[in-house]
Amino acid sequence: MSQRVSKAGGNIKYALSANDAFIASVEAGETFVVECAINANDGTIRHLGQQLTDADVALPFVNGATGPIEVKGAKKGDMLKVEILDMELDTLGFTALWPGIGMFPDWVRQKEFGQITRVMEVKDGFVHWSDRLKLPVRPMIGVAGVAPVHGAVLTVDNGAHGGNLDVQEITSGNTVMFRVNHDGAHLFLGDCHAIQGDGEANGMGATEIAATLTVRVSLGKAPARLGHPRIETPTHICTLGCARPLEDAMRIAFQEMIYWLEDEYGIPATDGYMLLGQIAEARCTQVVNPKYTYICKVDKGILAELKG
Amino acid sequence: MSQRVSKAGGNIKYALSANDAFIASVEAGETFVVECAINANDGTIRHLGQQLTDADVALPFVNGATGPIEVKGAKKGDMLKVEILDMELDTLGFTALWPGIGMFPDWVRQKEFGQITRVMEVKDGFVHWSDRLKLPVRPMIGVAGVAPVHGAVLTVDNGAHGGNLDVQEITSGNTVMFRVNHDGAHLFLGDCHAIQGDGEANGMGATEIAATLTVRVSLGKAPARLGHPRIETPTHICTLGCARPLEDAMRIAFQEMIYWLEDEYGIPATDGYMLLGQIAEARCTQVVNPKYTYICKVDKGILAELKG
Amino acid sequence: MSQRVSKAGGNIKYALSANDAFIASVEAGETFVVECAINANDGTIRHLGQQLTDADVALPFVNGATGPIEVKGAKKGDMLKVEILDMELDTLGFTALWPGIGMFPDWVRQKEFGQITRVMEVKDGFVHWSDRLKLPVRPMIGVAGVAPVHGAVLTVDNGAHGGNLDVQEITSGNTVMFRVNHDGAHLFLGDCHAIQGDGEANGMGATEIAATLTVRVSLGKAPARLGHPRIETPTHICTLGCARPLEDAMRIAFQEMIYWLEDEYGIPATDGYMLLGQIAEARCTQVVNPKYTYICKVDKGILAELKG
Amino acid sequence: MSQRVSKAGGNIKYALSANDAFIASVEAGETFVVECAINANDGTIRHLGQQLTDADVALPFVNGATGPIEVKGAKKGDMLKVEILDMELDTLGFTALWPGIGMFPDWVRQKEFGQITRVMEVKDGFVHWSDRLKLPVRPMIGVAGVAPVHGAVLTVDNGAHGGNLDVQEITSGNTVMFRVNHDGAHLFLGDCHAIQGDGEANGMGATEIAATLTVRVSLGKAPARLGHPRIETPTHICTLGCARPLEDAMRIAFQEMIYWLEDEYGIPATDGYMLLGQIAEARCTQVVNPKYTYICKVDKGILAELKG
Repeated sequence: MSQRVSKAGGNIKYALSANDAFIASVEAGETFVVECAINANDGTIRHLGQQLTDADVALPFVNGATGPIEVKGAKKGDMLKVEILDMELDTLGFTALWPGIGMFPDWVRQKEFGQITRVMEVKDGFVHWSDRLKLPVRPMIGVAGVAPVHGAVLTVDNGAHGGNLDVQEITSGNTVMFRVNHDGAHLFLGDCHAIQGDGEANGMGATEIAATLTVRVSLGKAPARLGHPRIETPTHICTLGCARPLEDAMRIAFQEMIYWLEDEYGIPATDGYMLLGQIAEARCTQVVNPKYTYICKVDKGILAELKG
Repeated sequence: MSQRVSKAGGNIKYALSANDAFIASVEAGETFVVECAINANDGTIRHLGQQLTDADVALPFVNGATGPIEVKGAKKGDMLKVEILDMELDTLGFTALWPGIGMFPDWVRQKEFGQITRVMEVKDGFVHWSDRLKLPVRPMIGVAGVAPVHGAVLTVDNGAHGGNLDVQEITSGNTVMFRVNHDGAHLFLGDCHAIQGDGEANGMGATEIAATLTVRVSLGKAPARLGHPRIETPTHICTLGCARPLEDAMRIAFQEMIYWLEDEYGIPATDGYMLLGQIAEARCTQVVNPKYTYICKVDKGILAELKG
Repeated sequence: MSQRVSKAGGNIKYALSANDAFIASVEAGETFVVECAINANDGTIRHLGQQLTDADVALPFVNGATGPIEVKGAKKGDMLKVEILDMELDTLGFTALWPGIGMFPDWVRQKEFGQITRVMEVKDGFVHWSDRLKLPVRPMIGVAGVAPVHGAVLTVDNGAHGGNLDVQEITSGNTVMFRVNHDGAHLFLGDCHAIQGDGEANGMGATEIAATLTVRVSLGKAPARLGHPRIETPTHICTLGCARPLEDAMRIAFQEMIYWLEDEYGIPATDGYMLLGQIAEARCTQVVNPKYTYICKVDKGILAELKG
Repeated sequence: MSQRVSKAGGNIKYALSANDAFIASVEAGETFVVECAINANDGTIRHLGQQLTDADVALPFVNGATGPIEVKGAKKGDMLKVEILDMELDTLGFTALWPGIGMFPDWVRQKEFGQITRVMEVKDGFVHWSDRLKLPVRPMIGVAGVAPVHGAVLTVDNGAHGGNLDVQEITSGNTVMFRVNHDGAHLFLGDCHAIQGDGEANGMGATEIAATLTVRVSLGKAPARLGHPRIETPTHICTLGCARPLEDAMRIAFQEMIYWLEDEYGIPATDGYMLLGQIAEARCTQVVNPKYTYICKVDKGILAELKG
């Protein structure tokens, strides 16, 4: 039976750093279970029709994650691979409009929209938005990361260490990879979503939900030019960029893919740049966190002849 | 037999305006054929291995389009629907790195990349990138628009009138819709691509190719809040935003979708905003033209119960 | 003798909210003294040549401010005016390059620049940069604000409530104005600089220094359209905008000025917009905090005939 | 008596390129006179109260400049210095709100503002805005540049070659410097303003006016790292950055200043970066052209001991 990393007892943190005591310890190759609280704070959502209050949403200490988990043997310079085997979701989720948060912040036009919480049942493979509208469940993990190089980063923020990435591809069947900055890696996971749209327009934004994850970790050597987290799916290789303005997030994701294509597939950078002009699949997954996230993907089928 | 709008004899224009004489005239409901030149200038690409010179690429007068075509009966305030029935591509295409153009402009790091043209065969359903790399052909129309409200807009630029949109969804089987600003609409089409990546990273960017289009036009009443071009595919409704910075292009596309969901599906704007946080499929299709293009899509299947 | 608000004993906070207990209480019209710690933490800078370590800079809990100070009688909807009468600076200041911070963040080119602390003597009216280079002392207050409407905001961030504004005009002889969001206002002050360049390019950025401020507070009715902090100097009226991307920060500052010109000087918004095209003095004061700050200024001399 | 370069007879161009025939030829060291048309087209503004029409503003062919003028002996790799000795202004100027142009474009809120032309008398040292409002005349040259490296650039756009810079420091008493890209330099000047605010908020934006310039040109060797135009005033050295998004324009201007401080004053780049955090005077001069312009200035007085 797998080790279970509980979210109980102070295990939810609101900042990622190398200074916190580990709450659990796993071996490379080990499969284990991680409980993730709903964002806002766990236990906050209790019934349909509920409206969250300021007391429930303790900005900026939101997007709590379960961790840090020690990955034994992880050394600075390694690459930590986190394979997501399974996600089991709770049965109540919510989304909200919140002042100052979202693609249309106060200074654009959010004041028209106000402050609203929508609690929804999540069952039978659907998020039950209304009597007439059901959204397919597409589970994903919003916060995934390791301790950053320097200091602490709020779990509501993100960066080269991961964090509040809000990328739909961080889900069952896929593997997310991080450069290890500190011995033990200090893995954090949290902020799960039953479904999320690109851009996460309304900011509190996806269908936020508690979840229980089954994951397996492994270690390798980090590629020299791995600057931001990467993801591999059965069909695609994916690079991420976390930055602002949005143009910079996009550039980072593309630059990281140019590196990957050169280092692993032997495509010179100039060719890689032009090739992405033809085959990149890329989008902003969220424009609402302190730094934005962009993903750049390439179909492994197209590259198949180049490998090996 | 369909009317054929030739690209010969001065029918390729480098600016969209209401002042040019029509080169052809079609009826609402009519199916016709439009020849589109390769971008750079037609006839420029002659053989594999060719390197384009400054004389071939007469910046900023690039991305020529065939038009203006009169749509009889089109009045200001109408919506012009252009249904793309078929795209027949030429057999040679090219992509290029060009100074000052692309996602990594000179001030970032393009100087490392230089000036390179890559001419490629397009046959058997593939763009033949190299001996070992073949890209699937996914044809699309880069420039599609009508005369703008005011003055002229270069065909290398874009806006509420359309223009150099570079959106992959403008392709066979789909319908693109424009608000008519001047009687006769002044339709332009051009700048076809055998395949294009999201962002059109390298700027001259996609696999540029000459093409012959079969299209059918029709007229309706423009929705009051249609501000930018829209697209409908068999599976999705799509809104576009053309602006800079990139955040603004994204916001326009989402705002237009909020309008569409409210006006046609009865979803109040606040709900629509939150709903897009769950189900928007959105991405920047090009970040290299004077204004960027963002697309926001919603799956019609999810909305099915709301219609009618 | 004036009341003195000490920075000792837990009076330095790293987040602005309405939930903290007041550390002092002042009357409207009262002149009082506020001690402000150096940023990083007080006492951190001890000698020339010192290099700060990660332990000294506890990201993201930096830019500590002294407060919250109750302004008796301040009610939601009031405008709090803070007149800065005097600034007395310490004799050691510092500036630093720090990973991930600055106008050229890691993803542009900061990796070339590294991590460096420069401690400097501040005396005789100069910041002593080197044997051959002396910079004139131009004291200013980096953090000034009141409790935000919702939740807490880190003192390293900013917004409509003020916070880490980093505006050179917040200095002796000038008055900064805030909309009061909560009874008692919850005034915070801190993060003083001996001199700061526009943009605060290197991020830790200005000559950071401890200071003792003499200020006087007063209350009025907030103009209905006061959305962001304002400043008045002997010669100019000034509006601020805090946002990202940078275009949005600029737009807010200009929009706020259009409101001010209309509400107080009777200039219709359309005229005001065009007039700013002629006479705005505007610049980004910092591009390195979570949200950027833009200032828009108008010379009161030009407007003199319109007033009264 | 000085040579006079007339604006008559087709000497006003709307694109900068190396392909046009010279309209005049000057020697290095020569003082000469250049007539500049008002933007919109010369002769367009005839009387107070006039409203410009679409026919008067032939977008995107606006901001016409007088040239190209050959500077004899100018070779690629040289630096062209243009010293502005005198500006004599016409007596009627205008500013306008125009659809799609300005800091608040259509997609933000310009629709509220409409289309308005304001023609004003310029006399006695003032722009006569209204009976009660007079603006001090602060003459400047909006368009100044040389032929770009590649192709043509519209005079409404800008870049490393100069062009539609809209920088107030390009005025009498100052010198603007360009890297020469083609033999003869191909100097262009135009688009003068009686006064301009920072940001040029309304886009057509400053007080546009015809002017007669007296300038003197000289040649030197371009510094290896001069990437964008520079300006020297009696008190400041100034670098420019032309790009989008706005963050990039700012970064270029600062990077160019770091180069200048290192190359001419011996300040290592890391020190220069930190020093700009203290002493940079920087602002966006226009946010309304296809690429934005940022200026970064350093007070020569502060640097005095470092020179020589």
